[in-house]
Amino acid sequence: MADKKLVESITSMDEDFAKWYTDVVKKAELMDYSSVKGCMIFLPAGYALWENIQRLLDERFKATGVENVYMPLFIPESLLQKEKDHVEGFAPEVAWVTEGGGEKLEERMCVRPTSETLFCDLYKNLIHSYRDLPRIYNQWCSVVRWEKTTRPFLRSREFLWQEGHTMHETAEEAEERTVRMLNVYADFLKEELAIPTIKGRKTDKEKFAGATATYTVEAMMHDGKALQSGTSHNFGDGFAKAYGIEFTGRDNKLHTPFQTSWGLSTRLIGAMIMVHGDNDGLVLPPHISPTQVVVVPIQQKKEGVIEACRKLAGELSGLRVKVDESDRSPGFKFAEQEMRGFPLRIEIGPRDMENGECVVVRRDTHEKITIRMEDAAGYIPELLEKIQSDMYERALKHLTESIYEAHDYDEFKDLLENKNGFVKAMWCGDVECEDRIKADTTATSRCMPFTDNEPVAENCVCCGKPAKHLVIWGKAY
Amino acid sequence: MADKKLVESITSMDEDFAKWYTDVVKKAELMDYSSVKGCMIFLPAGYALWENIQRLLDERFKATGVENVYMPLFIPESLLQKEKDHVEGFAPEVAWVTEGGGEKLEERMCVRPTSETLFCDLYKNLIHSYRDLPRIYNQWCSVVRWEKTTRPFLRSREFLWQEGHTMHETAEEAEERTVRMLNVYADFLKEELAIPTIKGRKTDKEKFAGATATYTVEAMMHDGKALQSGTSHNFGDGFAKAYGIEFTGRDNKLHTPFQTSWGLSTRLIGAMIMVHGDNDGLVLPPHISPTQVVVVPIQQKKEGVIEACRKLAGELSGLRVKVDESDRSPGFKFAEQEMRGFPLRIEIGPRDMENGECVVVRRDTHEKITIRMEDAAGYIPELLEKIQSDMYERALKHLTESIYEAHDYDEFKDLLENKNGFVKAMWCGDVECEDRIKADTTATSRCMPFTDNEPVAENCVCCGKPAKHLVIWGKAY
Repeated sequence: MADKKLVESITSMDEDFAKWYTDVVKKAELMDYSSVKGCMIFLPAGYALWENIQRLLDERFKATGVENVYMPLFIPESLLQKEKDHVEGFAPEVAWVTEGGGEKLEERMCVRPTSETLFCDLYKNLIHSYRDLPRIYNQWCSVVRWEKTTRPFLRSREFLWQEGHTMHETAEEAEERTVRMLNVYADFLKEELAIPTIKGRKTDKEKFAGATATYTVEAMMHDGKALQSGTSHNFGDGFAKAYGIEFTGRDNKLHTPFQTSWGLSTRLIGAMIMVHGDNDGLVLPPHISPTQVVVVPIQQKKEGVIEACRKLAGELSGLRVKVDESDRSPGFKFAEQEMRGFPLRIEIGPRDMENGECVVVRRDTHEKITIRMEDAAGYIPELLEKIQSDMYERALKHLTESIYEAHDYDEFKDLLENKNGFVKAMWCGDVECEDRIKADTTATSRCMPFTDNEPVAENCVCCGKPAKHLVIWGKAY
Repeated sequence: MADKKLVESITSMDEDFAKWYTDVVKKAELMDYSSVKGCMIFLPAGYALWENIQRLLDERFKATGVENVYMPLFIPESLLQKEKDHVEGFAPEVAWVTEGGGEKLEERMCVRPTSETLFCDLYKNLIHSYRDLPRIYNQWCSVVRWEKTTRPFLRSREFLWQEGHTMHETAEEAEERTVRMLNVYADFLKEELAIPTIKGRKTDKEKFAGATATYTVEAMMHDGKALQSGTSHNFGDGFAKAYGIEFTGRDNKLHTPFQTSWGLSTRLIGAMIMVHGDNDGLVLPPHISPTQVVVVPIQQKKEGVIEACRKLAGELSGLRVKVDESDRSPGFKFAEQEMRGFPLRIEIGPRDMENGECVVVRRDTHEKITIRMEDAAGYIPELLEKIQSDMYERALKHLTESIYEAHDYDEFKDLLENKNGFVKAMWCGDVECEDRIKADTTATSRCMPFTDNEPVAENCVCCGKPAKHLVIWGKAY
């Protein structure tokens, strides 16, 4: 009975999704709360997910010519204030350092909420000629935003992320980079995290402070809510002008360069939990799971059992395999592997050994498959790839089936109140309608999608004026 | 002439070592100064070194059972103050956050100068039984110390590092982990960075604030000065007691666990520069160099030259190879490869192609070697390993030949004034002698070495009282 404790104490996701979520992050030991209000601790199981995200995404970045740098943690107030929209967007939620080395600072500095300002300051030094372009820099770091309410991975005062900041000779090249990085995010989410997304443009109300256009990848959680999973911004030459960045062009005249930025954060760990998890705990996509296969010995004190487990693990070279040799019961080990979401469990007991077999259990479907021991090295890697693609297909089916169309405001409100999912509806382009929709339904415009965007009506779903855009609306994390 | 500009503008290291150092870090584009006083920017060439250090060291950590976590950036003042020696050591040099989200904070928080206090706070939550031990956690992060004078990589207000923090059931196990991590550092420095070190214990004056013992690996720079390259601390149960961490032992009684911490920082990049660099710029050990081989086409517009370069590069699979196809002259490319310290250059021109040959140039010795093109795939990896070990051997020779013995105070002062290197001398164990030596010579005790520590005299080199320890003294960065 005690063996099941790990599992029994999770709230059912159908009963209370929010509580299910916090139960999973605690029980799977992904994070811990800290004495620092609003800041969380990434425990080994949680940080390992971020390490794998970093490794796989960084490879994709570098393949597109990205170079990593590291910028200071602090931004002097005068530097932050050079771009008006930006400072208005961020100043209310920053943390200020006012004392250092026992003295009051002459100028206070904020802990970076994002680093556009510092990159502009650097690029002003580095860029003088068209030969100095493009610059395609990125950094992996933590940023601080003084949030009032916080939730593990989804919203905390400090979070980990990457922020890319690029400078280009032409507006076209900047736009191309903005779209390219959005596609890197979408492909990464699809291929590594098994999360389908909707790509599109943010409305002006939802775009980044200081950007001319913000593109987003929006994912749908199991409860039908949206989670913005990565954004890519085109800044035009606004920041560059504000920071006085100029270069001598091919025509020997002075020009202002064009800028982009793009970021993805540890929120993504929250997305993975809420897209794939179930009532037994986490379900991790094989590509990202720190452990891909747990081998559990049955009646492990019987002669040869542990050895057979180790032998099999040894044959699965190239995979991340762990043999659970602890003195806990098999039931406890099963429950733990399920809670932690490791994609496959292999059970080997004395009877299996006699038959030259082992039992393979999929985490995502709970399916049990008996295979010949000698087939494992060929079969297990294939099965992991199958799980990866099955997880994506299931998530895609859920997303596709949870997008509704609204043709008038009553239908719109009804769908948002009674269905868990996104609603496609037409919009006139006025922020007043966005505000009213948010007030009436708590839903926000997630994006104006790049594809599947044929008009569903002629008029704005809210005010009835002629519509300009199809918008995906949803309640969001 | 203009092609040589990159190189000609470095100060000679024999003329002014400090200026040579800053010239190299700027010219090799490792870093840039920022608008944030005392903070530096890691440019791609500099950050790539840190990425390689991280990757190789992290593998070694994980092989000893280390797990990575991430702790908050901030430490509330009350938490910092729980361990008396520690707060005295760090409080004068921290930066304080006093405002957040537009409001004055109820309790100010410092930006972490190191995270012992946060780890103790976490371990208090996690550790209840001997079954919860050991905990062997590490984090890669940045820390802030409000230094008055700063130098690139060596001393800045923010720097990157890793800090390991472990908890153990017994004092013996903690001591074993302290020594084990020191050995990981020494082996890493030797095998990956080609830097020999002296392992030893710090005197009480030089040990970490709050530790019972600090062990160090001390490296010698080209100018004979010391650079502390990594430290490992045994805390005993002092912090654990101060933070109220207790566990139920195997005897069913309450015990206090034993703690260690160990860290290594971006200072190491400075060490690499100052151990291996020469008057042409950086010299990077092959294991850590972001680019290991630069292929330079000669008369690259001649038919087939670029293709031959690309073909050769393609054959060097598994190595980090770059073909320099830019439109600059070969002379410029040579100078740049030398400045950036990439271990090997391969030159291929039309005549080489006719002969089926290419010219290989070692960065460390400037030696030119003509080889058959078809031998490259076998020869180049071997040559890189040879460079790696030759670089270590040269650095070891320099270290060994620059350690002197002093038997009395006049000889001691004379050696420190007139020789560039370390001085072995006996010490009574009193801090007064350390203080006097520092006042008289600016040298400090680097460590009490673990080996090669046979007494060189009977009495303290400073006061003449009976000696307790042999100490390595040196001027330090």
